[in-house]
Amino acid sequence: MASSLTSQRVAVIGASGYGGLQTLRLLQGHPHLRVTFLGGERSSGKRWSELTPFLPLADDPVVQVPEPDAIAAAADFAVLSLPNGLAAQLVPPLLERGVRVVDLSADYRYRSLSRWQEVYAAEAHELGRADAELCAEAVYGLPEWYADAIASARLVAAPGCFPTASLLGLLPFLKQGLVEAGGIVIDAKTGTSGGGRAAKENLLLAEAAEAVAPYGVVGHRHTSEIEQIASQVAGQEIQLQFTPHLMPMVRGLLATVYCRLRDPGLTAEDCTTVLRSAYRHSPCVSVLPVGTYPSTKWVRQTNRALYSVQVDPRTGQLIVMGAVDNLVKGQAGQGVQCLNLMAGLEATTGLPLQPFYP
Amino acid sequence: MASSLTSQRVAVIGASGYGGLQTLRLLQGHPHLRVTFLGGERSSGKRWSELTPFLPLADDPVVQVPEPDAIAAAADFAVLSLPNGLAAQLVPPLLERGVRVVDLSADYRYRSLSRWQEVYAAEAHELGRADAELCAEAVYGLPEWYADAIASARLVAAPGCFPTASLLGLLPFLKQGLVEAGGIVIDAKTGTSGGGRAAKENLLLAEAAEAVAPYGVVGHRHTSEIEQIASQVAGQEIQLQFTPHLMPMVRGLLATVYCRLRDPGLTAEDCTTVLRSAYRHSPCVSVLPVGTYPSTKWVRQTNRALYSVQVDPRTGQLIVMGAVDNLVKGQAGQGVQCLNLMAGLEATTGLPLQPFYP
Amino acid sequence: MASSLTSQRVAVIGASGYGGLQTLRLLQGHPHLRVTFLGGERSSGKRWSELTPFLPLADDPVVQVPEPDAIAAAADFAVLSLPNGLAAQLVPPLLERGVRVVDLSADYRYRSLSRWQEVYAAEAHELGRADAELCAEAVYGLPEWYADAIASARLVAAPGCFPTASLLGLLPFLKQGLVEAGGIVIDAKTGTSGGGRAAKENLLLAEAAEAVAPYGVVGHRHTSEIEQIASQVAGQEIQLQFTPHLMPMVRGLLATVYCRLRDPGLTAEDCTTVLRSAYRHSPCVSVLPVGTYPSTKWVRQTNRALYSVQVDPRTGQLIVMGAVDNLVKGQAGQGVQCLNLMAGLEATTGLPLQPFYP
Amino acid sequence: MASSLTSQRVAVIGASGYGGLQTLRLLQGHPHLRVTFLGGERSSGKRWSELTPFLPLADDPVVQVPEPDAIAAAADFAVLSLPNGLAAQLVPPLLERGVRVVDLSADYRYRSLSRWQEVYAAEAHELGRADAELCAEAVYGLPEWYADAIASARLVAAPGCFPTASLLGLLPFLKQGLVEAGGIVIDAKTGTSGGGRAAKENLLLAEAAEAVAPYGVVGHRHTSEIEQIASQVAGQEIQLQFTPHLMPMVRGLLATVYCRLRDPGLTAEDCTTVLRSAYRHSPCVSVLPVGTYPSTKWVRQTNRALYSVQVDPRTGQLIVMGAVDNLVKGQAGQGVQCLNLMAGLEATTGLPLQPFYP
Repeated sequence: MASSLTSQRVAVIGASGYGGLQTLRLLQGHPHLRVTFLGGERSSGKRWSELTPFLPLADDPVVQVPEPDAIAAAADFAVLSLPNGLAAQLVPPLLERGVRVVDLSADYRYRSLSRWQEVYAAEAHELGRADAELCAEAVYGLPEWYADAIASARLVAAPGCFPTASLLGLLPFLKQGLVEAGGIVIDAKTGTSGGGRAAKENLLLAEAAEAVAPYGVVGHRHTSEIEQIASQVAGQEIQLQFTPHLMPMVRGLLATVYCRLRDPGLTAEDCTTVLRSAYRHSPCVSVLPVGTYPSTKWVRQTNRALYSVQVDPRTGQLIVMGAVDNLVKGQAGQGVQCLNLMAGLEATTGLPLQPFYP
Repeated sequence: MASSLTSQRVAVIGASGYGGLQTLRLLQGHPHLRVTFLGGERSSGKRWSELTPFLPLADDPVVQVPEPDAIAAAADFAVLSLPNGLAAQLVPPLLERGVRVVDLSADYRYRSLSRWQEVYAAEAHELGRADAELCAEAVYGLPEWYADAIASARLVAAPGCFPTASLLGLLPFLKQGLVEAGGIVIDAKTGTSGGGRAAKENLLLAEAAEAVAPYGVVGHRHTSEIEQIASQVAGQEIQLQFTPHLMPMVRGLLATVYCRLRDPGLTAEDCTTVLRSAYRHSPCVSVLPVGTYPSTKWVRQTNRALYSVQVDPRTGQLIVMGAVDNLVKGQAGQGVQCLNLMAGLEATTGLPLQPFYP
Repeated sequence: MASSLTSQRVAVIGASGYGGLQTLRLLQGHPHLRVTFLGGERSSGKRWSELTPFLPLADDPVVQVPEPDAIAAAADFAVLSLPNGLAAQLVPPLLERGVRVVDLSADYRYRSLSRWQEVYAAEAHELGRADAELCAEAVYGLPEWYADAIASARLVAAPGCFPTASLLGLLPFLKQGLVEAGGIVIDAKTGTSGGGRAAKENLLLAEAAEAVAPYGVVGHRHTSEIEQIASQVAGQEIQLQFTPHLMPMVRGLLATVYCRLRDPGLTAEDCTTVLRSAYRHSPCVSVLPVGTYPSTKWVRQTNRALYSVQVDPRTGQLIVMGAVDNLVKGQAGQGVQCLNLMAGLEATTGLPLQPFYP
Repeated sequence: MASSLTSQRVAVIGASGYGGLQTLRLLQGHPHLRVTFLGGERSSGKRWSELTPFLPLADDPVVQVPEPDAIAAAADFAVLSLPNGLAAQLVPPLLERGVRVVDLSADYRYRSLSRWQEVYAAEAHELGRADAELCAEAVYGLPEWYADAIASARLVAAPGCFPTASLLGLLPFLKQGLVEAGGIVIDAKTGTSGGGRAAKENLLLAEAAEAVAPYGVVGHRHTSEIEQIASQVAGQEIQLQFTPHLMPMVRGLLATVYCRLRDPGLTAEDCTTVLRSAYRHSPCVSVLPVGTYPSTKWVRQTNRALYSVQVDPRTGQLIVMGAVDNLVKGQAGQGVQCLNLMAGLEATTGLPLQPFYP
């Protein structure tokens, strides 16, 4: 772990969006990683303090055009927080120049480029890609399941927020074959910051406050991402129902996962033991006692994923409930967790795990 | 319909809670019903304007002790908005005195007293009841399904908020045998006003804002209420999974219902037709076109229940999404809808059906 | 009042913005005014139900290009809810064609065109205007102060939301010379719907929730509008401090007005009497008893302005607190109130005055 | 600073209220202070994890009865987060036993016991006090103004949230005689967490969301606290107008301070310089450039106080706007800042200064 003794250099690209902002904030307090390049598209050429008066950075840098040579000259790692499709334009030249990348977009979450082109058809139509081998090489950045691969990866695709909360709760049961492969329902709820910082009418406070509604019903793109990893861990094809809902709050994501136990004799305590055991070496995942249910507020602005399970002996259903902060464990914090592993550091270095409440 | 020509007299008991307040507000603008008795426990003896400076009532009445003789002298109908268990103390003497009752509590929602005593064990333990025959007589106040029985009832038990939103979406499919009886999942989301006006720590803004969490997982009392009616309409025993979640907003309730189609060839359009057809004579229920999903905000402060359906041909699942205002169609508005029928009026008389948006 | 017996025809222009939506909603329930023309710029050519699935209109009209001849053929009155500067393009041709106009923008709020051009310099620069005589003719649409002029006006300029809440509280004291002309401070708080429905980053829920901040400090454009009317009523030049703040809520506006009493012996009860007396014939203005302070929630979705006054004998200051719904009494409701007067109806016809609480 | 090299022991009394929770959370990450005693009244005897499943503490301690001998045996310092009046029961025995105290209540904020008894009459009536000399000895815990006295104090009274935000903005101008002593208006806005964690109807989300209202108009108890310090610093008696408003959000406090410049030629830039100069050695206070106004969100969950000033040359008024997190710089963070000074540490040790945004 010699690498941890000195500070390593990180470029943050897409700095003024929410993913970039969180990454910058997390790295501000980081003992071994420091931001040495600040890149953005719309914001390039602007002084940081104009863009973000509330988060002063040392020497008040100017945001740069994300040019690969400049990034490679300045940084060992790059965190990309760009719209889907754009990351794939920047990743190949960065890797060629020896910069290791954590990509927060969906561009490398699928093993197969053609699958990505199917699911992200609009982006694929607009921006050509021919990096199928990078899709196959990229590591899915869920550190609780792929830590070793992440540690040595050149390219890590940080998972989506919904897949993170859903998979961490579901995978231990699928892996052990404790639940049926069919009939899984994931009903998820997210704060509006998941929709990003670009202005959209439906995300205005006047529209989204005092309102709850489903969206992307049947066919939300995170469905296929969840199914890919779930199938891989289960060792069989999984098709499930995933329905996201928009909540009137800034941050926080709750996934309520319904599945059917193969052994109807399993109790909530048994299932809690399964989950605790799966994550006994994972400091970012905690499991509550039976009967205490996770609130998104309990993980706000932390990199913790918090779970609870319940079993209904009448219906034979297992209910797994998981809360994350969609912008931290669901995005930028998970990115930093991956960076830590890539840099030879403890996974939790510099990551907050306890909330300020309320 | 002679009865509709003159104004009928209504007592509102439990006037300063949310159910009472909504009832009063709805009756303020009602053309044929007028409030002639205002009763409350904690608030009795107080002048209305002290309790509620923002909703002036004519002559600024003093809240009365809900004494049966006084109520019977003043009113033809009574709306009871009291804690569970307390309504059952007042209903028998009111019926004896010829007052017809709409009860907003759970006391008469079960056909069997012993079932109520099982589900509401704490209340049953505290307050003795021996009115099994009234439980059997009471009509479940879901006007879209039981209009005739309501019209002639002495005692109507207005449904809970979750059962209202869940059942209106589910019953047409159960009745026609289009969905499987097993494996139904209802994932529901409610604003905090559903918890009432009495001060509780978990409902403080500081606690409940910026937070989403499940509660009452497996065993919430509305489960049995939903199952009772669902079983009755389906003609077979239904056991389902119901999980409520608390949302950071004042009003609004969304039920997302997952069930499995018997005929995998049915499309979302087919199912939309089923639902529209079921409610073609129900002015308080609307069904959106496929692909437009209901927001609780679209029914805020209205007596409308708004639905949309979607089908996943991959998994064979039907998803029925329904939004209501938990305090109007989910409580007091539905109570007034029942009152209208009992008084020989159009069901929608005096009830708002269009929201102020945003 | 023969005119009130039959229904009069109203065109609503700018129908899908918040001002237009409120106007439509209010006119849906109106007994004597009906919407006969629906106009919009961006939304023209679209069917209403696509734009606004939650507010069904009879016959589901298509939104029209706001062409003066078409409007004049269809309507007796027009309510314009357009961006500042655009209304002034449409008003002259409408008046020429005999259509009487209520304009919700700022275009005709100043008696002098040059004053408008000064305050709304950007708009004036972009869109030429030469209708100084219409500026002089237009009536300021504050019905509690200018009812007679409104009733006979061809063109009414509905006041801004901040001026409405501020002036209704301040004018009675200025008119009677009870407060000093100097040193008046208006500290105002508004929900984000005041910023309109067009998507802006700072009005996103993720940005505006859990946040309070001032904006437009010194020089907000409503300052000059308030000063113009305050000066006119006071009979002397008034210069005051007006500071708006953005609140994390959808609707509601509170103005806290600080001024100095000329007679230090006046009590809060005295000042309450002054205010009540000023509005004793104004059904849309209510004054609370001393010690009960208005909440914006108490007037939500109503056309009521709610006031309370307090006096600090130590400092000699009078504090006038007023709450309105920024989109109703602060905008569209006031517009309908003006329409009512212009149509020879009671000012409150069709306007809600009681809130649904909570 | 030898004392900083080893960890010092802190008792937190009133651990499950918001003040206690924040203190605990801040000390969790503190490099030189550690919590060695957890005391509470209602919560004593309970295991911490039952009370607060979301903030795990090492060894999951049991909350203790706050008994002076036990506290003195376990801790060098005590932070008291108790209701007004109760702290004064515990402080004398703690000081006798050599425990240095930071009190978050109002009990020692006044130099004179009789003044406290006047302002906090209800508490004074209920709980006798005879510790006038402690009132005189206690240091007002505003570190930017009283750092030296705090460092050597036995007893520090942490300021109220409103006084903190108001005084930090106002004092530099009063001290230099730049503003008039009369006519100062402070219009303040606070999130509901300022009302504490005990359940109260008016702080329910259903009541407080989508609502803004003033409270405590003329005579709020923080008025006298602000005036005491303002007068002391100004060197003359100051009487001012202070009006708090309740905002629909969890955390955050904004004070908008209006005062009159003595020299009408001073510009906003001049006044910004005054403020920056006053706090050039104060890392917890920042001053924004002219025209950028502070949002409470920019200081959320930080110990930073953020200011901006504006001047209206027409009216001669200076407007000072300041944002703090009411529970951090407005309460527990300021308490830790005082603790740091008392322990010989840098004032900012362990205190977050940068927000997670949004």
